[in-house]
Amino acid sequence: MIFETTYNDNNYPIILKQNALAEINHFLKENEQNIVLIDQDVYRFHKDYIKANLENQDIKFITIMSGEACKQMSYFESISEKILSLNINRQSQLIAIGGGATGDFVGFLAATLLRGIDFIQVPTTLLAHDSAIGGKVGINASVGKNLIGAFHRPRAVIYDLNFLNTLPHTEIRSGFGEVYKHAILNSETDTWHLMDQYPSIRELSRLENIDTFLKMGIETKLKIVIEDEFEGGVRKHLNLGHTFGHGLEYLTKIAHGEAVMIGILFQKIINKNRNLFDNQESIHIFINYLKELGYPLSIINNANIELIFDYMKKDKKNIGQTIQMVLQEGEASFTIESVSKDEVLDAFIELKSLINE
Amino acid sequence: MIFETTYNDNNYPIILKQNALAEINHFLKENEQNIVLIDQDVYRFHKDYIKANLENQDIKFITIMSGEACKQMSYFESISEKILSLNINRQSQLIAIGGGATGDFVGFLAATLLRGIDFIQVPTTLLAHDSAIGGKVGINASVGKNLIGAFHRPRAVIYDLNFLNTLPHTEIRSGFGEVYKHAILNSETDTWHLMDQYPSIRELSRLENIDTFLKMGIETKLKIVIEDEFEGGVRKHLNLGHTFGHGLEYLTKIAHGEAVMIGILFQKIINKNRNLFDNQESIHIFINYLKELGYPLSIINNANIELIFDYMKKDKKNIGQTIQMVLQEGEASFTIESVSKDEVLDAFIELKSLINE
Repeated sequence: MIFETTYNDNNYPIILKQNALAEINHFLKENEQNIVLIDQDVYRFHKDYIKANLENQDIKFITIMSGEACKQMSYFESISEKILSLNINRQSQLIAIGGGATGDFVGFLAATLLRGIDFIQVPTTLLAHDSAIGGKVGINASVGKNLIGAFHRPRAVIYDLNFLNTLPHTEIRSGFGEVYKHAILNSETDTWHLMDQYPSIRELSRLENIDTFLKMGIETKLKIVIEDEFEGGVRKHLNLGHTFGHGLEYLTKIAHGEAVMIGILFQKIINKNRNLFDNQESIHIFINYLKELGYPLSIINNANIELIFDYMKKDKKNIGQTIQMVLQEGEASFTIESVSKDEVLDAFIELKSLINE
Repeated sequence: MIFETTYNDNNYPIILKQNALAEINHFLKENEQNIVLIDQDVYRFHKDYIKANLENQDIKFITIMSGEACKQMSYFESISEKILSLNINRQSQLIAIGGGATGDFVGFLAATLLRGIDFIQVPTTLLAHDSAIGGKVGINASVGKNLIGAFHRPRAVIYDLNFLNTLPHTEIRSGFGEVYKHAILNSETDTWHLMDQYPSIRELSRLENIDTFLKMGIETKLKIVIEDEFEGGVRKHLNLGHTFGHGLEYLTKIAHGEAVMIGILFQKIINKNRNLFDNQESIHIFINYLKELGYPLSIINNANIELIFDYMKKDKKNIGQTIQMVLQEGEASFTIESVSKDEVLDAFIELKSLINE
């Protein structure tokens, strides 16, 4: 399936299907440099498939460090020098082949080299269905994730489902975390459909019908980011589960979407304590589901909430010195609220006891 | 005098006068962090004046390396970590006090920290009348200047003429290069007015009436950048003198605007050779004027044109493998043309012989 963004200008297509990669030939620039930056693991697994699909054999390939490791400033420096030494000009374009981190990193290169050149996203993970949409790109600082970045829309997103076949379980769970988050944002029914289709890690790892759910997730995200590209309002809802999740991810190094799912659980506890959307029952259903899918809940037992809280204080969405969290008020209805340290500490104690029941 | 940009949105004021600095108090954010990044030399010379004009004494000051030295990636990394460790949020703002390099560097920090925060430009040099206008920000790569950057408009430009009193001659000549370039872009009459007002370095260093000419320069630049913010067309004319100039600057380390003035001379020779705007007489008048003002023309005697040409080939405005240069067709009428290596070599030989006449 192909869909197109609906911004006021500079729209781009999102091509989502098996064997989508061949479509990339329509987006290569003639007489200009097309430079592929590819996750080294993806390159190892899929080199033949990728080369077979690229008709233009002059394309330069640069393999980059796999996953989040590439998003360091020193690495950004070395890769940007490498690209600049190829004598690129403003018509040159970059092609990112890899997961969310690859897209963030290459997107930030494209946003800043020569003050902005084109790039194409070729996501190879489930998680990248989220990060490839919406134009957020960036790298990490030592004090936190994605703190240096930009908004830079790709020229096209080419989402080839073939790449998903080699994903490990952790990667599937991580991507599924964002799929599930988008379902929550859209409607309760969407979340029941997901739980129905993928009742356990066994069914989830088969990824049957995943294109339908990826499309739903992408559409939900697009609706939001087109309404509020620069996160002045409703786009903040996409941070559901991320305030606690980012802290947990940063400290424990579990996968992004796994941390987000635990962050969603954390948020549900605060919802319940504030008499908002959740209650004991909805929380139990959710915890049991996370256990069925194998989310690493036990990491909570060794996590230091003081350090997580310190990290939460640094979130770029905060206002003044208070922590801002997305909370759920009703079905598909969200609010952004200040949350006190006491509330966070109480919710953490409850989280710990719930996962050990 | 105060004028306002006329973009479709996100306009900002430009305040140009003696003692303008006190106006900064109207732009400071209450209950949010205001962080001043200031050129260490400017801080040393003007610390008391600056502190006396800032009513809010909570403002954090970070001194940065003076001039172009700050625009290195490793320095960008260390200063961005320093700012992030202050727990900034998206409402925080940076204030750049310094010359063009300071504005470029701090602007790039503001463009990328948390994917973009506000910044205020407080230019302290003549040259910064150019770089503070138009939203171009960035840092250098080892292969060339300003190759990593963004477009990011300031919230305000506060141009306090008091700072100009301590500028050395080289700095004055450098800034005057861009003032003169803006005059050429606007009309012949403007260039005659400049030559009239400042017939030699003695008059120029007094900077009498400079506010009038700075205003004219800013207005010329604004007209162009508002019409073509992202340099798809007419904004390229602002690169008059820069293709050769950047190469000369990079190799010889003379001041930016001094190199641009020599680049304008170089461009005049090509104009003449192509039967465009210039002729022997206009070139002689211009060379004599450069000598009166003390531009470092003799640097040409030791410059290696092969290396300059290699640098010109890397210009981000090039298309494919050809060098693009701004040439003058008539009064205030410009064109962008491919220039061959032979033409560049011929013009260089002529330049060398002209300056030694």
